[in-house]
Amino acid sequence: MPTVDLNADMGESFGPWKMGDDASLLKIITSANIACGGHAGDADVMADTMRMAQENGVGIGAHPGFMDLAGFGRNRIQMPRGTLQNQIRYQVAASVGMARSMGVKVRHLKLHGAIGNMTSEDAQMAEDLYDAALSVDPDLIVMVLAATAQQEAVEKLGCKWAGEIFADRAYNDDATLVDRRQPGAVIHDAERAGSRMVEMVKAGAIITESGKQIETRIDTICLHGDTPEAVQIAGSVCKQLEAAGITLEQFEGHK
Amino acid sequence: MPTVDLNADMGESFGPWKMGDDASLLKIITSANIACGGHAGDADVMADTMRMAQENGVGIGAHPGFMDLAGFGRNRIQMPRGTLQNQIRYQVAASVGMARSMGVKVRHLKLHGAIGNMTSEDAQMAEDLYDAALSVDPDLIVMVLAATAQQEAVEKLGCKWAGEIFADRAYNDDATLVDRRQPGAVIHDAERAGSRMVEMVKAGAIITESGKQIETRIDTICLHGDTPEAVQIAGSVCKQLEAAGITLEQFEGHK
Amino acid sequence: MPTVDLNADMGESFGPWKMGDDASLLKIITSANIACGGHAGDADVMADTMRMAQENGVGIGAHPGFMDLAGFGRNRIQMPRGTLQNQIRYQVAASVGMARSMGVKVRHLKLHGAIGNMTSEDAQMAEDLYDAALSVDPDLIVMVLAATAQQEAVEKLGCKWAGEIFADRAYNDDATLVDRRQPGAVIHDAERAGSRMVEMVKAGAIITESGKQIETRIDTICLHGDTPEAVQIAGSVCKQLEAAGITLEQFEGHK
Amino acid sequence: MPTVDLNADMGESFGPWKMGDDASLLKIITSANIACGGHAGDADVMADTMRMAQENGVGIGAHPGFMDLAGFGRNRIQMPRGTLQNQIRYQVAASVGMARSMGVKVRHLKLHGAIGNMTSEDAQMAEDLYDAALSVDPDLIVMVLAATAQQEAVEKLGCKWAGEIFADRAYNDDATLVDRRQPGAVIHDAERAGSRMVEMVKAGAIITESGKQIETRIDTICLHGDTPEAVQIAGSVCKQLEAAGITLEQFEGHK
Repeated sequence: MPTVDLNADMGESFGPWKMGDDASLLKIITSANIACGGHAGDADVMADTMRMAQENGVGIGAHPGFMDLAGFGRNRIQMPRGTLQNQIRYQVAASVGMARSMGVKVRHLKLHGAIGNMTSEDAQMAEDLYDAALSVDPDLIVMVLAATAQQEAVEKLGCKWAGEIFADRAYNDDATLVDRRQPGAVIHDAERAGSRMVEMVKAGAIITESGKQIETRIDTICLHGDTPEAVQIAGSVCKQLEAAGITLEQFEGHK
Repeated sequence: MPTVDLNADMGESFGPWKMGDDASLLKIITSANIACGGHAGDADVMADTMRMAQENGVGIGAHPGFMDLAGFGRNRIQMPRGTLQNQIRYQVAASVGMARSMGVKVRHLKLHGAIGNMTSEDAQMAEDLYDAALSVDPDLIVMVLAATAQQEAVEKLGCKWAGEIFADRAYNDDATLVDRRQPGAVIHDAERAGSRMVEMVKAGAIITESGKQIETRIDTICLHGDTPEAVQIAGSVCKQLEAAGITLEQFEGHK
Repeated sequence: MPTVDLNADMGESFGPWKMGDDASLLKIITSANIACGGHAGDADVMADTMRMAQENGVGIGAHPGFMDLAGFGRNRIQMPRGTLQNQIRYQVAASVGMARSMGVKVRHLKLHGAIGNMTSEDAQMAEDLYDAALSVDPDLIVMVLAATAQQEAVEKLGCKWAGEIFADRAYNDDATLVDRRQPGAVIHDAERAGSRMVEMVKAGAIITESGKQIETRIDTICLHGDTPEAVQIAGSVCKQLEAAGITLEQFEGHK
Repeated sequence: MPTVDLNADMGESFGPWKMGDDASLLKIITSANIACGGHAGDADVMADTMRMAQENGVGIGAHPGFMDLAGFGRNRIQMPRGTLQNQIRYQVAASVGMARSMGVKVRHLKLHGAIGNMTSEDAQMAEDLYDAALSVDPDLIVMVLAATAQQEAVEKLGCKWAGEIFADRAYNDDATLVDRRQPGAVIHDAERAGSRMVEMVKAGAIITESGKQIETRIDTICLHGDTPEAVQIAGSVCKQLEAAGITLEQFEGHK
């Protein structure tokens, strides 16, 4: 039977401001994408979140983004590629070293927000940023949006990677996400979110709105922590996967 | 004959703003204290400065400070110790990982500005912050203001350290620096700065204004890059040390 | 019968991060202390909070603090007085002009966090910072912690001011607050918080833990928005004041 | 005889970092575009620069940009229009109020860097941002890049405006600037920069590389302060305009 990993973004509090319910999510997921102080997070939050992840046996990932706290890394910024590469190096370095100081290890990398979106459309950009991150630690497993330009980039780089799909987002026939403004783009029904995931993991394919199957590696499923129905969706996905005999465990990455 | 290291702060530019003449100083010094993005520096500046240091055979050090760009880390901030420790971890981590991504290595640690001053007066604070830095990389050589509370801290921690004196500052009889507002506190005469350093290195002691000798390890001499006479002082110190048969080379640290 | 104002800090969200339940508090209070982008708040939050305050007929105040988002303005920073004065000018200016652009008006000033605490102990500092704020708008009513060094400062400056007491904090015999670490320092019992306020407003005096009365102007009562019992305390204070025939209305300030 | 204003960007130092030689430029120009703490500048720098401008009889302008210090407001950022409008309000408000606290007045507005470029291409964006700025102070004279979308916007808004050309940049036939990467895009010859300006001011037209004349209002000439030949160009422009009988004086704006 197949196995699959569950991941979620976390460590996105900052100073006095809290975001999300990381403690609860850490009881469900197997991999945590932890902000690096660029778009969110600070030194205290990183240290605390890494410690909590470790205590829950959850894999730790670096989750760098545009260094734009006020915009939460969600605004697209046109900036010199070399500068952006250095900012990725900086954030991944902070994450890797902070983990070491806590006696834990960063296993994977996931790009955040606008950088994540831009690199899913632009394989050269993805390659440049992954290359920068891997220069800090070549053993990182790169988490990519399955069947996008991000996947092209890791295949070209020859690094270890893991393919990711979304529990609560509908797909177009070219494997891109249905625009949030379209009806049905976001799945709010926990039951349905769970059954879709079982279907896709078993098929080894993204199943689009039209019913088309796009074969791809599905190593991990992204759960969101910040929507009202997040907890129900997470619970349903988890329960239905287990009921279908699919084991939840950390991805190992592959080349 | 004794050897001694010459160090200077650098990598303190930020975004579009330049500070100091790092390229010139790197031709003279043997160890560079490179800002980590806390009080100064950014990802581009760190990467460029590390590369230039490497090209000049100069040892690379992490130089963290209060995360207060506008104040350049010079304002004393009363903050929770644990938070400050995590901020030191974060900055040292960023520095160590950025170096690795450039194929170089961070050898030493020096605390910047107000944190440097506060830890030279408070051994417990020094111990807490050095401990945080060493949790990221236990092999770092800690550069301490010789004969201050910083030295007490490294002796208690049992880590590798190197003792530092200033080329251009007069000393009180308790090994503290004469207050900048006192006449004679800052040495502006390059010739005299050079001859004092030869005298102190040969004596293995800080020589105070009153003529008192305070025996201490002198492993490195701090040169400043930001005063008008900085280049002359650096040149004079360098020339007179060499004329006295003292070899300029990187410290190895000792326990 | 006497009147009294109820005030609370708000507009302390930042970027994607929410803080407090401003909409609910605005239904109870008569004056809102709105962060200026220094310790919290951003341009969107300021504009939204000012608009909501206006819609609820609540007086708008500028609430500047140390420009230290990560520390929420709670860390004491030793910095040049002239620089801190300019930072107060900058924040008050931003607040006053933002209000004008929304068609509303900033009526009062309250210093936040560590700056608030420091100026309640140091009359010269209070005078310097109030003077800076008033240079932007001399008609601002300065809200001071009653019977502290802040009050000395406004009396010396001869500006309009309003005296403030806390609904949920116990007082020492010198009018300072009982240290939070002491038992009984923070009032958690909503009933008691309300009855204390009625007693103090009627007496025109702070009543300390020992029962001593310190005569002072009581123009406004500070409610907190961020504790679990905040809403109950606010409601109880409000109800008991009204039951005692004390009218809740904005202070006008006095010289 | 015609008159013309000379303007330059300034107040772009930040914390410990200096940029440009504002004191020298203030002896030549008639209008100063002063950064507002968004892309550059801080409260001290704003206060000092405004005071110096006043002492030199130079008109003071607010010069807001993207709130991105590390990128100096030069990176294009895709962000919600309403948020950007509020950020413009915030910066203009800070500028207007800081000026008032110094006893001086903000006369004009100029958009900086990437925001300047984007609004010269997009009249709706220009209108939205000018509208935001004017909501803080409707008497501001808006400085626009002559014959661009910025000019369309002020004509539509019906506000006071002044048209600007560049001393050291070559023009295409559609009034846009020749791309910096093209040969001849930047004028380095001070003599020629001066004679071009005399020619254009007299003609009341931008003269393009091909010799085409684009009639437009020329109320002010932009001098740069940050290139090696900046001082010579400024001096030459100034001298040749005066020799041609063109008076240098602040624009009054027109509708």
